Amino acid sequence: MTEFTLKSPLDMHIHFREGDMLKLVAPLSAASFAGGVIMPNLVPPVDSIERLVSYQNDISDAISSHEFEPFMTLFLKEYSLELLKSAKDKIIGIKLYPEGATTNSEGGVASIEAAKETLQIMSDLEIPLLVHGENPDAFVMDREKDFLKQYHELATEFPKLKIVMEHITTAEAVALLDEYENLYATVTLQHLLITLDDVAGGLLNPHLFCKPIAKRPEDRDALLNAALTAHPKLMFGSDSAPHPLHKKECCGCAAGVFTAPIALQILVELFEKHDALDKLQDFISDNAIRNYEIDVPDTTVNFVKKEFVIPDKYGDVVPMYAGQTIAWSIDG
Amino acid sequence: MTEFTLKSPLDMHIHFREGDMLKLVAPLSAASFAGGVIMPNLVPPVDSIERLVSYQNDISDAISSHEFEPFMTLFLKEYSLELLKSAKDKIIGIKLYPEGATTNSEGGVASIEAAKETLQIMSDLEIPLLVHGENPDAFVMDREKDFLKQYHELATEFPKLKIVMEHITTAEAVALLDEYENLYATVTLQHLLITLDDVAGGLLNPHLFCKPIAKRPEDRDALLNAALTAHPKLMFGSDSAPHPLHKKECCGCAAGVFTAPIALQILVELFEKHDALDKLQDFISDNAIRNYEIDVPDTTVNFVKKEFVIPDKYGDVVPMYAGQTIAWSIDG
Repeated sequence: MTEFTLKSPLDMHIHFREGDMLKLVAPLSAASFAGGVIMPNLVPPVDSIERLVSYQNDISDAISSHEFEPFMTLFLKEYSLELLKSAKDKIIGIKLYPEGATTNSEGGVASIEAAKETLQIMSDLEIPLLVHGENPDAFVMDREKDFLKQYHELATEFPKLKIVMEHITTAEAVALLDEYENLYATVTLQHLLITLDDVAGGLLNPHLFCKPIAKRPEDRDALLNAALTAHPKLMFGSDSAPHPLHKKECCGCAAGVFTAPIALQILVELFEKHDALDKLQDFISDNAIRNYEIDVPDTTVNFVKKEFVIPDKYGDVVPMYAGQTIAWSIDG
Repeated sequence: MTEFTLKSPLDMHIHFREGDMLKLVAPLSAASFAGGVIMPNLVPPVDSIERLVSYQNDISDAISSHEFEPFMTLFLKEYSLELLKSAKDKIIGIKLYPEGATTNSEGGVASIEAAKETLQIMSDLEIPLLVHGENPDAFVMDREKDFLKQYHELATEFPKLKIVMEHITTAEAVALLDEYENLYATVTLQHLLITLDDVAGGLLNPHLFCKPIAKRPEDRDALLNAALTAHPKLMFGSDSAPHPLHKKECCGCAAGVFTAPIALQILVELFEKHDALDKLQDFISDNAIRNYEIDVPDTTVNFVKKEFVIPDKYGDVVPMYAGQTIAWSIDG
């Protein structure tokens, strides 16, 4: 095959940041994706309607002429019924961060117990819950596994609440998708491709360091298999997380892999390699449209089999696989 | 307690490098240690008597007036009986590196099978075997565990050969010490203190990145327990491995933690904290003297309970815990 087309590709987990970084990265996503779920862990977090609307306006300004739908999220805290009623039409969901689990999660939820009233309102109003599923107190390789019991608890206690396990990284999380009807998941590009070996098995590679950290080969294989077979409850979410160079190649490097502008080309290459190109449309868009029941801009992205060298940097941000050559390019 | 004394502390696994780096780091070890086992993985490796003697002379020049015994090692390859007979009095042992396992191990042993003739000669001549026990083809967290079967094989096939498992990092390796009479081990400072959490659980910390990589909390606890109880077959070996700053805080960071100048003070603090100061003399010196049957310079190091701020750098090398304050200082 030398040409390939995707309709309305969606990035169901993306960090756009603010200010100059927003102006740099939002157009890079909007150039190829038709929409994305925008994470709310800014400083301060997106936790009021005013902040939400103003952030959405900044995003609209940044993406300018591109046809791109920013699906907004609120940062989970205790919200009133009134607030959630008026927020409902403006958001795709609310994101739960356990306190201290990742970048800018300091104001996150100390215990799920404390959020249960809000979760019940969300369930009643049919507002999905997006979850950063890590127990930050557990050993780094166990943080997601240790959180799974909370997914069990949430899925059981709120059977009508749609719960999205964000950026899953373990075989156990994949298995959980088939256990509860109301559990969904996103997976990133890097967790389909790498293990801890790629981060710390040879030289230490800060550009592949992210949270949750890449796990074992058997975990990567389970994630890849679920993506290549287009598991109906699994959606693509890049978790593309730009940091300026000085926060990555330094003494204490920030967590996050920047993949937004190169994710689609690499996915086409990956799915072709595994003879699964016919599953990519589901994984990259149709699953999300059905699971979230959303309307998205009607766009197409054409790919041609022509070598593409991943740039060393976009602005001051180093992308995943910088400088490497991949087999597919976006046409035009 | 406010004062404490150690006799003839020994570092049974140390990287002195060559040239300017040797001149920087050898005196820092020799200032407090009475002797050390010098690793042979230079470029090119120390694999001839000429190279060994010339390297030992360079070390003697570098440590100048300090009373310090460099116990030399050869890099394992196929050696003749004649060569090993004439090397025997000049070395403490021969170091086995699986090909590709760590810094400058490219010329290492592709399979143990190929080295068996040499190992038999070593056994006959009573030359100990020191082993970097990692399978470089395994997943990074499994590399030591995956190598244990080779320790079983070596210990069984060469029952008279003293085999030292260098820088052990897992609970399973600790357990192996009690299984075979001819198995011994060294452990580093960092593996008594840290887990993968400290390397990659928060921000990524290149200064705590080493090979073998720090493992799980239960591994660290097993190592610490063996040290604090002065397991008779366990010896201190810092594996202190200096790299210039630009090779650590960079895009692909080299593996190695630099601890030589601060290891003793931190060990005194650690053993005191666990009420095990009475075990430190065995761990830091007596076990090694007995296990290797060596004579060492008769030195003393006095410690006083006085705050010591670990320097940010020694030359261009950043030590472990740079800038942190510890409770004990070396007196004078």
